This record gives sequence, structure tokens and C-alpha cells, in this order.
Amino acid sequence: MNAEIIAVGSELLLGQIVNSNAQFISKNLADIGVNVYYHTVAGDNANRLASVVQNAKTRSDLLIFTGGLGPTKDDLTKETIAAVFQKELVHDELSLQYIKNYFVQSNRQMTPNNEKQALIIKDSIVFPNENGMAPGMAFTDEGITCILLPGPPSEMKPMFQKFVVPYLESKSGAKTKLYSRVLKFFGIGESTLETELQDLIEKQSNPTIAPLASEHEVTIRLTAAHSDQKEAENLLDETEAKIVSKTSSYFYGYDLDTLERCLIDSLLQKKATIASAESLTGGLFSKVITDIPGASSIFKGGAVVYSNELKQTLLHVPVSLLKQHGAVSKECAEWMAEKIRTLTDADYGISFTGVAGPDKQEEKQAGTVYIGISNESETISFPLQLAGTRNAIRERTVKYGFFFMNQMIKKGQ
Amino acid sequence: MNAEIIAVGSELLLGQIVNSNAQFISKNLADIGVNVYYHTVAGDNANRLASVVQNAKTRSDLLIFTGGLGPTKDDLTKETIAAVFQKELVHDELSLQYIKNYFVQSNRQMTPNNEKQALIIKDSIVFPNENGMAPGMAFTDEGITCILLPGPPSEMKPMFQKFVVPYLESKSGAKTKLYSRVLKFFGIGESTLETELQDLIEKQSNPTIAPLASEHEVTIRLTAAHSDQKEAENLLDETEAKIVSKTSSYFYGYDLDTLERCLIDSLLQKKATIASAESLTGGLFSKVITDIPGASSIFKGGAVVYSNELKQTLLHVPVSLLKQHGAVSKECAEWMAEKIRTLTDADYGISFTGVAGPDKQEEKQAGTVYIGISNESETISFPLQLAGTRNAIRERTVKYGFFFMNQMIKKGQ
Repeated sequence: MNAEIIAVGSELLLGQIVNSNAQFISKNLADIGVNVYYHTVAGDNANRLASVVQNAKTRSDLLIFTGGLGPTKDDLTKETIAAVFQKELVHDELSLQYIKNYFVQSNRQMTPNNEKQALIIKDSIVFPNENGMAPGMAFTDEGITCILLPGPPSEMKPMFQKFVVPYLESKSGAKTKLYSRVLKFFGIGESTLETELQDLIEKQSNPTIAPLASEHEVTIRLTAAHSDQKEAENLLDETEAKIVSKTSSYFYGYDLDTLERCLIDSLLQKKATIASAESLTGGLFSKVITDIPGASSIFKGGAVVYSNELKQTLLHVPVSLLKQHGAVSKECAEWMAEKIRTLTDADYGISFTGVAGPDKQEEKQAGTVYIGISNESETISFPLQLAGTRNAIRERTVKYGFFFMNQMIKKGQ
Repeated sequence: MNAEIIAVGSELLLGQIVNSNAQFISKNLADIGVNVYYHTVAGDNANRLASVVQNAKTRSDLLIFTGGLGPTKDDLTKETIAAVFQKELVHDELSLQYIKNYFVQSNRQMTPNNEKQALIIKDSIVFPNENGMAPGMAFTDEGITCILLPGPPSEMKPMFQKFVVPYLESKSGAKTKLYSRVLKFFGIGESTLETELQDLIEKQSNPTIAPLASEHEVTIRLTAAHSDQKEAENLLDETEAKIVSKTSSYFYGYDLDTLERCLIDSLLQKKATIASAESLTGGLFSKVITDIPGASSIFKGGAVVYSNELKQTLLHVPVSLLKQHGAVSKECAEWMAEKIRTLTDADYGISFTGVAGPDKQEEKQAGTVYIGISNESETISFPLQLAGTRNAIRERTVKYGFFFMNQMIKKGQ
């Protein structure tokens, strides 16, 4: 099946929101071996949308639509697709009941325009919306399968995973499937990694090797095509081994692994805890670690000592240290890491101090950063000189923090 | 000019990255009155890309391409467009020199594949890349203007703003321009707001009124078309006044205003400071406030007291309070807010305690949240019952924190 993802909504064409739905659907289709050849975005305009659908029919056999199923007048996806495929819209009693209940449960009055959401294209399979009101639907006509999904990601994503993936898997009779594995690297640039692996990338066709820089990390996606899953896994294993042998100090995980997930897992395994003292990162480290449910078993909390005053009040950094070395210093980082560890009785303390920019501080350039790490036996620090915007510097600083902590724990410390 | 934005890159179709370039370009084109009717994404495949270009030529007169200008074999945007428009590729000496310098400056060896980046489509205007290597370019042929830009957002965005916007403005002879204004609301749902404004939305055509829910807020984009900027502003002012008169308690700002930006501005104006004590939000409040350069003038820092243990150690929350009311309580929120204020000698203290989920805590449902606010004269709290995922609950909690603080300061407290 060759798929095209068609998002409908003028808010996308006005740049008010980003088309994250297309990314999500693409990623999930790749995982089940469906090729995506095009993404298209059209606005809330029936004529232009109709011509997009006509064009898509000539080049793709699976059309996945997001958006335009809502209650308002500019929601016209169903109406337009029904017209192109010359199909009727019919009321779906179950969906209407569901919508009515939704209003009752959230204790709100149902306005009449909401009834439009219970209209479906005749002969469709209906996908219930467990996180909103507009149901999704799918039908096949003229050899082309159309899937219509709501626009809000919080409704579309769970519907896709629960209903659309099984629907597509049951439809697809394909023998050769694609199996992907993502290798994750930190601390190395994309072009350096690609040059390092030049030979492999040129020689390899199955699996394919696709490096990609994203969010201060580099990933390599290996994709093997095979009718047998085990054989595909073998192909992936072989190529992975070759890659990792050349890049082992930067390689840290797979697929959904993140630097923070890896840290949480190894701390859980060691039954150890961590606390943080943050200056330039202003709480970003603790925010990222507590994004993950269950972080409370390993993360005690910490101090955000954004001002020098708070470095003294909360972490008792001596005035003499601040005077002699400054807050942006190896000495201050180490003090902060050790102090937060002992104050909170954690096994590890980590600290971040530096200049996020754009302005200099203590005569030090933006991007000057010190990360301190402390455990019972030692307290060390890592100086960094980072480039980029304020946000990039803060984000990379935190990633380096996770990376250094992971390395320390890996070494058994 | 009717524009189409065409992104090239298999990483987009595999869902490895999101097409944030299309959003950025759309937003900037809307601001200078260029209509965007389509976004398209094609992979690194010459045939499919060529057919996308052919199709775009039939429906749009400005084609903006992103991606595929790099040094590797799968970068084929220039080659494909040149073929479709039957134009040659030529070496651009200045760009080549620039690329060579780039390697010298970053102290790296230039690999030969990088020379390909200095190829441009004949008769193009070249846009220098001040943040990377591949130059951008523009040419007009058969009445169609093509603009080619690099894919990495850190290179594309500055190039777009510095070179492409002036280029387009000089090309466009249009008299009627679009003027937009975004009104921002918090604490009200999109459908309620729309119902509230039903009459206005139906009657109004210039400016148009487009509500949109995004990131736990609702925005309304007003767009007026007029040949005279002042007249357009008058149209916008009139409609804004009508809208705000009906929704004043939720309206908080314009365009680039954010809840946090508004708080920082009013604290700066009052020369007041704030400190935070965060439990369920785990540092998110302090992260968001320190995202903004200059936050250090008003934000002292705070405590991330994720564990009950730290609530006691760092904020001296009495065991009896925790036993009697629990950490997720009005009492704990108020204690935390007051304590962080006095400990840090700030003018305002704000606290967040609650259940982020997915699991219950202290027998309280996920989404049970208390926000405490303290100043010299009083300490109060706000109970919330929020729905959604863990991240949604954390994000909305922090937004409510900014919202309540803004309201308090507005009232002169």
C-alpha cells in the first residue's frame, strides 16, 4: 500500500500550528511497513480540497485524512470526500449517542452544531473517538481506501493506535515487510558520523542506513525488508554491530530510548536516587526527568538557584567562592552538586551552572557551562563550550548532564 | 501570489522529523500577505519529486522548497527542479569560497562531496547561508517563481527572514495587503468561545475571525484586507473591541504575548520578584520562566520538592500537615508558597502540588491540583480539577499558575 497523508485546515496553511499529525502517522505506518510517498495540506476550502483528493487518487491507494470533522461550518472534509467518491452522508446513531453522553459527562450544554459530528460517509467502518467527539471512519471504493481522522492530536493519536493500525494490518496481505530499528547517539555530529560510516552506508542496501540529526542528537534508522521477521532482525543485528563497533562511545540506545529514560532505568536498577541543583538550566533537568511517570522513585527533587543570592541561601555556596571563581565555574558546579546531594540525602547530585546567553555573564561567553556530578566517593565536573541560541544551550546542557551521568553509572560509579 | 510550500526529505515521510519549516514559512508569508494554498512533502526520489513540481506549477505561482540542498547523494532538489524547468546547474564561486571558509573556521577537514553544495540553478539570485553551508536561491521562469532553501531550520529561518522576505516584498506589486492580529485567551474552551462570538463570526468578513485551540489556550486570529495599513488597523481595532467586551475575563494578550511573558513584564514594571516551589510540575514553571532572557531580574529561583521528604527538608512542611491533609492539599500548597517566598526573600511565592498521573496519589485522582500564591499581605490557593495526560496536566497547571499570578497583579495585589 502506498499512502498519502492529507491534512485539512487553514490553520496549518497560516502557520498557526505544525502538522505533527503527519509525523505521527508516518512513523506508525513505517513501523507496519506501509510506504508514505506524500504529505499534503489543504485549507478549509471545498474546491481546492476536492482537487487534492482527485490528484491523490491518481497516485496513492491509501489516503489518510486528518482534520475537518468538527462541528463548525469550516469543517468540510467528510462532505468533500463524499462528493468526490459520489457517496452519501448518513447519521450514525451510536456516534450521536456518544456525543450526547460526552456533553453530559463534562457537564456542558450540547449546542446543535455538534450533531453534524455524527454524520458518516455511507458504508464506512466507524472508529469511536474515546478522547473527543468526532468519530473517525474508513471506506474502500474504486480500489482506494480512505481513512478520516479527527484533527486534534490528543484524539487522533489514540484512535490511530487502537483502531487504525489493526484495521490496516488486517487489510494488508503483503509478504515483504519493513522492519526498522533506530540507533541513538549523543556527542557526535551528523556529518562526522556519516563520514565515519561512509563505507557501510554506500555498500548497504538491506538494511538501509539513514543518519539524521535531531534535537542535539544523531539517530541512525536501519530498515530491513524481509518476509520473515527473524531474518530481518538478523540483518539489523549484523549492521548494528558493524556500526556500533566504530562509534561505541557515542551510542547510547534504541528507538524510544532517551538519555533521560536510560538514566532513570539505570538508577532504578541500582535502587539509587538523584537530586539536582540548577542555575542556567532553570529547572529544565528536573522538568525533563519528571516528565516520565515513576520518576519519583529515583528523583528526589532539587533547587533552582537562578540568582547568586539563592545559591548562597539554599545551597550555602560561600561568598568567597563566588568572589574568587564566580558562579560560572568548576568550583561552583562541584559545590552545588555535592551540596544538593548531601542536603537531600541522595546517592547522586548533579549541578548545572553557566551562561545561557544571549548576554555575557561574569565576562564569560554565552555557552560557557560547567556540569558537576557528585556521589559518595567523589565530586567531579565537566566544562563545556556550547554554541547556539539560549534555548539550544540550555537543552544541550541538560542532555550532556544525562549523558555524563549515564557514563558514570555505566562505569560502575 | 499563491504559494505552495514543498518540503523534500524522506525523513519527513518516515516521521522522523516534523515539518516545522512549513509552519514557519506559512506564518511569515501570512504576515506579508502571500496566500499559502498547499503544503506538500515528497521524499528523496527524483521521479516523485518531479511530478510534485509539475503539479505545483499548474496550481501555484510561487513554489518554496525546503531541504535536499546538502552534500549527500540523496540531496536532489536542485537537480530535479533544474530538470523540470530545463535549466542548467552552474558552480557559484562565492558560495564555494564560503563553504571552504566554513570548514576552516570550524577547524574541520572539507570532504569533496561538499562542493556539490556550491552548485546553483543558472540565473538564480543566491541567498548566502550564514548559519551553514548550502546557499539558497530564487529564479522566475514561465511566470513561476521558485525559491530553494536549506532544510535545517537553524539555517532556513534566518535566511528566510533576512533574504527571502525582502525579495518577495520587492517582487509583489499587490495593493491590498493582509494585516493580522492574534488575540490570546486562557481558561475558556474553543467551542464555548465560538458560541459566545457566534454572531460576530457569522456577520464579519473583513476582518475574518478565526478561533483556534492550541496548547491549552485559545487564540483568535483577525485578518483584515486593505490597501491602507491604518484603515486595516482600524478594522482590527473595532472587531477586537467587540470580541473583548464579551470575553474580557479570559483575554490576556496579543500575538507573541504569552502568559509567562505577561507575568515577567508586569513584575519588571513593579520591580518585584518571584520564587517557586514545585511538586507535580517538577521544575516546569521555573523552566518556562527562565526560557526568557532577562528573567533573572524577576525570578530568584526555587525548590523542586518532588518527594515528600524534600518538602520537609527544603521547605520545612510539618509532618503533621502532611499527615492530616496530605501533600496534595490546599494547606500544603499555601505552606509551600509562603515558605518559598520568605526563604528567598521574594515579593511573591508560587507553589504547585497535585497529582500529575497516570496513577492516583493519596487516594486523589490524577488532575487534582492546588496552586498556592503568597505575597506579604496574604497567602491564597486555587484548587483545580484537570483532565488529560500527565504532560497536559503539568502544562495546564503551570499555565494556570501564570494566569492566576497575572490576575492577582492586575488587581493591584
